[in-house]
Amino acid sequence: MPGKVLVYSRFPKAMMVPIGERYDVLDSKGRPIAETFSPEQLSQVRVLISAGATLLPEQVMDLLPSLKAIICYGTGYDGVDLAAASARGIAVGHSPAANAAAVADLAVTLMLAVTRRLIPADAYVRSGDWAAAKPSPQMAPRPGNPGRRVGVYGMGAIGRKIAARAAAFETEVAYFSRTRHDVPYRYIDSLATLAEWSDVLIVAVRAGADTHHIINADILRRLGPDGTLVNISRGSAVDEAALVAALTDGTIAGAGLDVFETEPHSPDALTAFPNVVLTPHIGGHTADSHQAMQDCVLANLDAAFHGKPLPYPVTSDS
Amino acid sequence: MPGKVLVYSRFPKAMMVPIGERYDVLDSKGRPIAETFSPEQLSQVRVLISAGATLLPEQVMDLLPSLKAIICYGTGYDGVDLAAASARGIAVGHSPAANAAAVADLAVTLMLAVTRRLIPADAYVRSGDWAAAKPSPQMAPRPGNPGRRVGVYGMGAIGRKIAARAAAFETEVAYFSRTRHDVPYRYIDSLATLAEWSDVLIVAVRAGADTHHIINADILRRLGPDGTLVNISRGSAVDEAALVAALTDGTIAGAGLDVFETEPHSPDALTAFPNVVLTPHIGGHTADSHQAMQDCVLANLDAAFHGKPLPYPVTSDS
Repeated sequence: MPGKVLVYSRFPKAMMVPIGERYDVLDSKGRPIAETFSPEQLSQVRVLISAGATLLPEQVMDLLPSLKAIICYGTGYDGVDLAAASARGIAVGHSPAANAAAVADLAVTLMLAVTRRLIPADAYVRSGDWAAAKPSPQMAPRPGNPGRRVGVYGMGAIGRKIAARAAAFETEVAYFSRTRHDVPYRYIDSLATLAEWSDVLIVAVRAGADTHHIINADILRRLGPDGTLVNISRGSAVDEAALVAALTDGTIAGAGLDVFETEPHSPDALTAFPNVVLTPHIGGHTADSHQAMQDCVLANLDAAFHGKPLPYPVTSDS
Repeated sequence: MPGKVLVYSRFPKAMMVPIGERYDVLDSKGRPIAETFSPEQLSQVRVLISAGATLLPEQVMDLLPSLKAIICYGTGYDGVDLAAASARGIAVGHSPAANAAAVADLAVTLMLAVTRRLIPADAYVRSGDWAAAKPSPQMAPRPGNPGRRVGVYGMGAIGRKIAARAAAFETEVAYFSRTRHDVPYRYIDSLATLAEWSDVLIVAVRAGADTHHIINADILRRLGPDGTLVNISRGSAVDEAALVAALTDGTIAGAGLDVFETEPHSPDALTAFPNVVLTPHIGGHTADSHQAMQDCVLANLDAAFHGKPLPYPVTSDS
């Protein structure tokens, strides 16, 4: 097939193997493409594969005169300048909902792990402190799930699955999103009110300019000293400095975070807290979720190379 | 009120405060009572409070001639010689189902944490290995929840709540128990077949002589190399030496354990595994669960001191 596939973000090697078997691949390994490939190589790029969060501005598109499609691996596409792509006739695709169950599972895992202090509990056993009957303030009993108010911010495919899972723990579930959905959960009409109401606030909103640092000091203050924040969306949705401050002074009780502002870095200050659980952006990282995402990527790639519409395009409500 | 309450097991101090406010308490702090109290003190004991797993044989009952009731704090009563109590006209009470939600929550938390490798994931972020892009075999993608086969062994109050929670993660749920129950889950007619069928086997059976080491090398072999064991019941239900062997040679994939054969000790061999999550018997350890258990204990105490039937007695099917 004429034309090349440019791997634009840094991906684990194994994820790109099936693509390399079918197409001629230029793998940037996340390095700047202008410094990595010759203009001639770049002129042959027909399709680009990106992790959705990697910044992909118009200047990059202009280095790729034959580019027909940008295909995001995963559901997010927040790094892509959609208007610039549209103006250049470049289609943008992603893997909608392919990872929703896996991400929702991790969100609820983080909620449970933070509120039951699972990391300190495991350390308490492994260190021998339990056997030595050493007192541990981390092991004091805390409120359980029945009656707990779980607020879900964002009601897309992931938010819905989070809500269904959380409700099974005999919690009360409510949500806020830009629009009201036909779901069996209470709708609260602002993020600020949802934060006030919630014992656990789970961020499942699509990232973008309008949600940058939307979880700020004011929202955390509203969540309150018994409140827990969970973020499995994007690091950019949370003002990390405000979060560190809120954890330091007890403005909130704890946090579970799968995403960070500057991945793969998490602030040193965060790693010192016993009342947080930190995971390395593994929300969608299960074998079945990878398979489903890869199926979407390959179907999008195939369509792009045959000049057909993408089967999994980014749409205005996706 | 005439007569004393003997605290027979070792309990955290705070748990006995409300009892000390109402009754005259002899607290053994878990020491042998014959060496701790005088025969005269023991002759005044009207009610005994025990953690259900603490061994309470007839020889102990014979030291307490005025004993009218044994009240177990929690749902278990496996340490109590029920026949000996019955022969002496001693009532036995417990806190049925008071901690069921909290224990079921922890069971599912352990399932999620083990299968998503939450402890190594958190350590991967905190250590800086993620930022350094250090490869980690623990972070390889593993099967997710949708379609996962979750086998629940035991279908009492806790087993039912585990099943309901696990099903919300789009899993398939089946169970085995001595009798078939009117529940919306598939019944499998032996533990061996359940273990063969299960990806995750959750032990929620009531402990007793008939379930001692019932999870043995054969059951673990049937669970298999992709299988995970979760135990929130009693340590005695699992042959710990067989479990350590199965984890060492890859007979099973991982384990989540809240209970151990000789608490508060967990075998040193277990603490070396990255694919286990260990918690210090905190299944029922939430603020609301403690309150509910304490309400049962106080109601049982009050009845015992007024010569009334216990409101929360141990019954043949409890």
